[in-house]
Amino acid sequence: MSKSQDLAICLVSGGMDSLVTAAIANTKHERLAFLHLNYGQKTEKRELKSFHDIAEFYGVPESHRKIIDVSFLKQIGGSSLTDDSINVKNYEGDKEVIPDSYVPFRNTHIVSMAVSWAEVIGAKKIFIGAVYEDSSGYPDCRPSYYKALNALIKEGTKDGDIEVITPVILMKKEEIVKKAVEMKAPLELTWSCYSSEDKSCGICDSCALRLRGFQKAGIEDPLPYHQRPKYI
Amino acid sequence: MSKSQDLAICLVSGGMDSLVTAAIANTKHERLAFLHLNYGQKTEKRELKSFHDIAEFYGVPESHRKIIDVSFLKQIGGSSLTDDSINVKNYEGDKEVIPDSYVPFRNTHIVSMAVSWAEVIGAKKIFIGAVYEDSSGYPDCRPSYYKALNALIKEGTKDGDIEVITPVILMKKEEIVKKAVEMKAPLELTWSCYSSEDKSCGICDSCALRLRGFQKAGIEDPLPYHQRPKYI
Repeated sequence: MSKSQDLAICLVSGGMDSLVTAAIANTKHERLAFLHLNYGQKTEKRELKSFHDIAEFYGVPESHRKIIDVSFLKQIGGSSLTDDSINVKNYEGDKEVIPDSYVPFRNTHIVSMAVSWAEVIGAKKIFIGAVYEDSSGYPDCRPSYYKALNALIKEGTKDGDIEVITPVILMKKEEIVKKAVEMKAPLELTWSCYSSEDKSCGICDSCALRLRGFQKAGIEDPLPYHQRPKYI
Repeated sequence: MSKSQDLAICLVSGGMDSLVTAAIANTKHERLAFLHLNYGQKTEKRELKSFHDIAEFYGVPESHRKIIDVSFLKQIGGSSLTDDSINVKNYEGDKEVIPDSYVPFRNTHIVSMAVSWAEVIGAKKIFIGAVYEDSSGYPDCRPSYYKALNALIKEGTKDGDIEVITPVILMKKEEIVKKAVEMKAPLELTWSCYSSEDKSCGICDSCALRLRGFQKAGIEDPLPYHQRPKYI
């Protein structure tokens, strides 16, 4: 399959889901632009390193990388990821409970940045690594949410031809791990931990999800950990 | 009609459209919260004064006023309102041309702030003074855009019960002026000019729209102007 000449934007947090999403976008588009949102999370510095490492890996030039400070989310509050006064809670494995790390309506903010940037640079596709299975009840990780979002983008943009694509939304975490290995995507360059920047803590909800995914896939996580509990 | 006890958020830029929108919200809700976005526009300081003046007028306590810095829009560029290198162009009266002051997908960013805040404070309605007639081709001022946005909010929020209301969207500017007078809303506290903060310039597209509205309504604009051309 020959690649599209259209410019595509990838939202790259620095985690595994966005890595695989970028790897998939890279098979479909000749030219990629990477967007990273700094919304004041505790491990932002480490995630930004992963962002640049992954950009280097896929040959995305610095001129096509953008980091946007969205620390206004801190002013809205209501989330342990952005509110220093709330501790990050461990993952309870209960998908019905929307965790403290929930930033209300967060993905709309994130995708809106990408849509605005897409209008400016002429990109037609926006790839985001939203995953429904481990969304812990986030309403804005559901396929139906992205369907509604694409309908909104059609109405709210100049030419109505920008589309959000969620290539890993229906994958389980272990499938994402396997897909990354299959695509030779650099898992060792990613970062997932919400709590710690030197080694992954192994116990925050994001580490637990990640380790469970590797363990179910039967693959060793290349990242260093402070502790590496058995989750399965 | 008795007022709803539900808390309602009003997006208040400081202009006439948001004034009338707030006045209408005030007739329907016992408790209002005012949200102002500072997206780095040239006349922000003056608009913020109008925001607080209007909040005082409607008895909105300081605890229910929020100002969010959305200067990330500057980093996206592509607009004379947020990019200092582009001059504000005069209004051409051509609705088919999307003006330089267009921030791509701007209203989605703005409403998303309100939705996030609504989730945090428990507000169920969000009033925004979008006006289709003088939208100069902004796609995100169309009624169909707000219909799609409400569908998205239903999908992307915890309880799916937050609604955006656009009470002046189908009004012409002169109807907004007349409505403000009829509702005894304080037009003298508003600010519309994009270019100047001491007196309104009278010639930027926003001043032209405003003055045309007053002139068609046969009402004198209470604001001071550097010049006050006849637009009709």
